[in-house]
Amino acid sequence: MTDPLRLGIAGLGTVGAGVVKIIRQKSVLLAERTGRPITISAVCARNRDRDRGVPLGDYAWEDDAVALAKRDDVDVFVELMGGSDGPAKAATEAALAMGKDVVTANKALLAHHGTALALQAEAAGSVLRFEAAVAGGIPVIKALTEGLAGNEITRVMGVMNGSCNYILTRMENAGLTYQEAFAEADGLGYLEADPELDVGGIDAGHKLSLLASIAFGTQVAFSAVELEGIGKVSIDDIRQAADMGYKIKLLGVCRMTGRGLEQRMSPCLVPQTSPLGQLDGGTNMVMIEGDQVGQIVMRGAGAGEGPTASAVLGDLMDIARGTRLSTFGQPASSLKSVTAARVATPAPYYVRMALVDKPGALAKVATALGEAGISINRMRQYDHTNEAAPVLIVTHKTTRAALDQAIEAMAPTGVVAADPVVLRIEAV
Amino acid sequence: MTDPLRLGIAGLGTVGAGVVKIIRQKSVLLAERTGRPITISAVCARNRDRDRGVPLGDYAWEDDAVALAKRDDVDVFVELMGGSDGPAKAATEAALAMGKDVVTANKALLAHHGTALALQAEAAGSVLRFEAAVAGGIPVIKALTEGLAGNEITRVMGVMNGSCNYILTRMENAGLTYQEAFAEADGLGYLEADPELDVGGIDAGHKLSLLASIAFGTQVAFSAVELEGIGKVSIDDIRQAADMGYKIKLLGVCRMTGRGLEQRMSPCLVPQTSPLGQLDGGTNMVMIEGDQVGQIVMRGAGAGEGPTASAVLGDLMDIARGTRLSTFGQPASSLKSVTAARVATPAPYYVRMALVDKPGALAKVATALGEAGISINRMRQYDHTNEAAPVLIVTHKTTRAALDQAIEAMAPTGVVAADPVVLRIEAV
Repeated sequence: MTDPLRLGIAGLGTVGAGVVKIIRQKSVLLAERTGRPITISAVCARNRDRDRGVPLGDYAWEDDAVALAKRDDVDVFVELMGGSDGPAKAATEAALAMGKDVVTANKALLAHHGTALALQAEAAGSVLRFEAAVAGGIPVIKALTEGLAGNEITRVMGVMNGSCNYILTRMENAGLTYQEAFAEADGLGYLEADPELDVGGIDAGHKLSLLASIAFGTQVAFSAVELEGIGKVSIDDIRQAADMGYKIKLLGVCRMTGRGLEQRMSPCLVPQTSPLGQLDGGTNMVMIEGDQVGQIVMRGAGAGEGPTASAVLGDLMDIARGTRLSTFGQPASSLKSVTAARVATPAPYYVRMALVDKPGALAKVATALGEAGISINRMRQYDHTNEAAPVLIVTHKTTRAALDQAIEAMAPTGVVAADPVVLRIEAV
Repeated sequence: MTDPLRLGIAGLGTVGAGVVKIIRQKSVLLAERTGRPITISAVCARNRDRDRGVPLGDYAWEDDAVALAKRDDVDVFVELMGGSDGPAKAATEAALAMGKDVVTANKALLAHHGTALALQAEAAGSVLRFEAAVAGGIPVIKALTEGLAGNEITRVMGVMNGSCNYILTRMENAGLTYQEAFAEADGLGYLEADPELDVGGIDAGHKLSLLASIAFGTQVAFSAVELEGIGKVSIDDIRQAADMGYKIKLLGVCRMTGRGLEQRMSPCLVPQTSPLGQLDGGTNMVMIEGDQVGQIVMRGAGAGEGPTASAVLGDLMDIARGTRLSTFGQPASSLKSVTAARVATPAPYYVRMALVDKPGALAKVATALGEAGISINRMRQYDHTNEAAPVLIVTHKTTRAALDQAIEAMAPTGVVAADPVVLRIEAV
């Protein structure tokens, strides 16, 4: 295995340029570790003339990613273009059809077409890997697929969108409104061209669906992820959750239940003192829980040139070393189809409401909760100057359905001044 | 690759029994993930009659580990006996000599003979893996060898002995003396038969030397680890470090410097609010820093049946899947010999001393520090009722040699009542 491993790299944005730089600058180190040189045969991007801070003259240029993927001098097609369909998908399929290996950072592509692409790779005897698609530089796909493969996985959860965590952290630390923190993150270039991918939880939901597939041996089921973004999180909730000892995080959780696969990406409360609660700014954290190993926590940069390129290199070096793994940790043909759990596992909930200031108001709320079978763990009513009193309730374990029922029962009483905010408290 | 992977397991203590249990109970899951059955051909331990909570009647019994390692029906020799020499070494060598693969949890064996065994494995075309030897269930060997292989590693550090961390945590949280916390840990069975392996930092030093070899492509050099145990850490230091915003941890640090390889395992101060500072009890944490990825933090159980068996299974499943890796991440023959850095990288230090209560005492201390080129960051003198005043000093970055020089210069002044305590403050 001393023949060079020859790459064709499609997409020369931040990550693509980062991968080219490492391969140019660290060729001796990489060859020492893998036993063979890793070289670049050809590259491809939308604009040939843009200066990417790295010389590209040594490599053949292709305008078309499919043509790049099909080149005879390309052993591994490195897909760093992005997009769930279009050229990224066409070129990945073309590479696999020719029996080439593929390394991608494209979570959207795999969330939508992961099972089909894994099946195609398997039929062709090709390897399709995607460490860079989830949690940036954290080698979490490897940990889950390989290092913890002896475990029955019980739950995987994490903060996997640094931009959302940055916005929530800035709201908390600087007292910004959601709109102000959003504008700041946008100005710093932290948000996707379509920011709904970030703040709507879609990007993080893509990642969660990939982790769930490996963890539970199921087909990728992004459409079954229960998605809720951070757009409705208010500074009031952040402050009042803090007052109760919690932080609000856009948290992804997946677990296999007797009712089917549960996949949720939504703003949740976690204890301030937990590792997740202490995760500030753009950092990512993934927690994997297995029946043997207990809880493993991994933390690191979730985006950026260096961290993402590091993850791409990890996959490429595996291939250079001759490691051949199934895309989702077991033969794609053996991945089970998903039954989505319609009801999330019971949990405590945080409820914030504004009560009109008249005798018996709190009693009506408490009655509605009690009749829905919900018991109260902690309750606080705050001092107020206008006609509505802020009330916070932390419930014991219950379901979202029971809460919705209670809230519906409160409406006719006329004591609730605005739509209550309901957030799940995830045990971490 | 549908032939079973046949194991011979030597050592049926907690970990060995745990591995047997998983292989018996999870055979379908393991085969689904690896594509082939993993079976046990034979086992070996000191006492055949002991009840280990798992049926062993299906497996051939060997009294001698070397005989087990040589059996024709054993593909992988699983060494869970422990000990840096004796039967563990003899049987590992016998297995490698016959071209068999070896998975071990034995940090002492590899710390002392790792380079030689890796060379032997390489010559035989065998795989020798040891995920379970470092940080229990945390898949840190895999992360460093594979996931982060595209990085030039700049520093690896961590808390890798749960027993020491338990003792330090109990001293802090329950106000126990070192002797009391030690006795408690011993009573709970947390300490090795020779407790100096734990509290002397030797066990953690073994682990650090293995991480350093992978990180820097060097031969394993345990004898070059600068070792200091926790036996001298007093409750006063824990309290006064806390007063300055720090916690005391038995911290391993390795980095490559212009002066050679630095490997230290010693009690250090880390900020209370850092991930390491928040690591309580028996949990382990390893931080890997790379030029591309930045800092990756991994946390999990560092010992115990399930976590350690999980790590052994990770290695076995790699082998079942056909993954063939060099023991220390590159050909053993290419590992560089180590020049040990004689002087640690400069850092701030914590100094606790007792000053005799007479005019000019502090001036003499300050003068001695100044003349050794050491500048003071923070200083506190505490109220006192006896004749000696407790004084805490946090220096700016300096070297241990400069501090030793300053302390030597203080002696003749007669103002220092007892040997000062000096602890390094590690930037995390």
